[in-house]
Amino acid sequence: MSTPRQIPNVVTIAGIDPSGGAGIYADLKAFSAHGAYGCGVVAALTAQNTQAVTGVHTPPIDFLRLQIDTLFSDVRIDAVKLGMLGTADIVFNVADRLAHYAAKFVVCDPVMVAKSGDHLLAKNAVAMVKEALLPQSFMITPNLPEAGVLLDQRAPESVKEMYRAAERLRELLPLSSERWVLLKGGHLPGGELMDLLFDGDRMVELPGQRIDTKNTHGTGCSLSAAIAALLPQAQGQFRPVEAAVRHAREWLLRAIAASGELEVGKGHGPVHHFHALWKR
Amino acid sequence: MSTPRQIPNVVTIAGIDPSGGAGIYADLKAFSAHGAYGCGVVAALTAQNTQAVTGVHTPPIDFLRLQIDTLFSDVRIDAVKLGMLGTADIVFNVADRLAHYAAKFVVCDPVMVAKSGDHLLAKNAVAMVKEALLPQSFMITPNLPEAGVLLDQRAPESVKEMYRAAERLRELLPLSSERWVLLKGGHLPGGELMDLLFDGDRMVELPGQRIDTKNTHGTGCSLSAAIAALLPQAQGQFRPVEAAVRHAREWLLRAIAASGELEVGKGHGPVHHFHALWKR
Repeated sequence: MSTPRQIPNVVTIAGIDPSGGAGIYADLKAFSAHGAYGCGVVAALTAQNTQAVTGVHTPPIDFLRLQIDTLFSDVRIDAVKLGMLGTADIVFNVADRLAHYAAKFVVCDPVMVAKSGDHLLAKNAVAMVKEALLPQSFMITPNLPEAGVLLDQRAPESVKEMYRAAERLRELLPLSSERWVLLKGGHLPGGELMDLLFDGDRMVELPGQRIDTKNTHGTGCSLSAAIAALLPQAQGQFRPVEAAVRHAREWLLRAIAASGELEVGKGHGPVHHFHALWKR
Repeated sequence: MSTPRQIPNVVTIAGIDPSGGAGIYADLKAFSAHGAYGCGVVAALTAQNTQAVTGVHTPPIDFLRLQIDTLFSDVRIDAVKLGMLGTADIVFNVADRLAHYAAKFVVCDPVMVAKSGDHLLAKNAVAMVKEALLPQSFMITPNLPEAGVLLDQRAPESVKEMYRAAERLRELLPLSSERWVLLKGGHLPGGELMDLLFDGDRMVELPGQRIDTKNTHGTGCSLSAAIAALLPQAQGQFRPVEAAVRHAREWLLRAIAASGELEVGKGHGPVHHFHALWKR
């Protein structure tokens, strides 16, 4: 990527994973690995490690709004990444504040279930995501199960079904302005791996490479955070959104491949966000 | 610093500053800038920007303990940095858990007042810091006002008074094992700048260099976090603790000097944690 002079300020609004592999901390590491200054608004706290979520604590809604208002009233925010938002009330209030500040480059990762299998989004919140949050989103980055929930259908099981799902997901976003769907095919049955990037006009196939590792904690968080960090920096390039997504995917692949350099926990370990920056 | 092969896992137990300049996020950035994998246990949330703290939310004590137990039971922790702990109850429970897990390289930054002037530690918590937390601390890193509070005297106003304060602070730590005081002289009147590093035996004078900037938000957090990240990696070197402290101070000086590259808020901006890693 080219590096313009202004360092982007990027905020994640999501949950906290104290073990640092997912959620806000993973997002901050991904921002930092891509030359962006990181902020973070806390929608929920978890007690969590690489094996399980053992507890959740949700701060009051008024305090969530206060965090956002205090931040946006002082700091120029160039992109927003949305992760675990937990409840319909949180979703509504985040969407309300993003609309108020006319937030740019909102990348919505519709987190619903943790790698450990624990549910992270109340079931009645899905309608609010579609009604209030998607209109504020520049890009959504669902995986196949999340796409199924958003579309109220079973998860796509082939690239052909992914095409149709990406088209239908794009219809959930405002039709009259530039909006993007990144549909992640990591859950495809069989060996195939394919993501689709779609703006309503041109479908970009992004074939992937499977890496044999259990260290996949926070891969979804990290990818969408990297994209949010890169979107402001990619402006002016040819096909800037596609460039940002391709760059972020290549980085994540290397971060997963390097995850064995870390020794963090006994379950699904984190990816190595700083594989390219640390000299060892 | 030499770079042994094992990447240390370092946890900060502190407060959150959503604007990313201080607290847990600054600590994670400092860990990441020094080759350490970062975790973070949330003792308190603030709504905050570069100008003011507008609100504080404290999760239940049981949830604090759950975060710590969930993390330490799964992840090997090589060093601990302690920041804003807020209340006597929090201080007691953090100390209790650190003792339970026999935590190594605990660097205690006795945060009491934000750069904005807001109080971050209840006044009745100071006795608990001395009674429960200092016995678990490998190093404490007070500035001069904090040293005054810990010693129940006025803040030192000269290097000579700092010598005596460092000696008295060392007496608050266990006498029969290796423990360190880093007394930070940034608040000395006049142009002089001097930190003192003392283990009860040898007093090391660390003269400083003042940089004309208002971007000093989170300098204390960042320094103690960098030290915590470096302590495990410095083992085996000549005078490892002194080496870690000198390295962290030089890094912070350059991070302050580079802070103008960031454009974060209208008040006391953050330092540039990644000045050495980002190619621009």
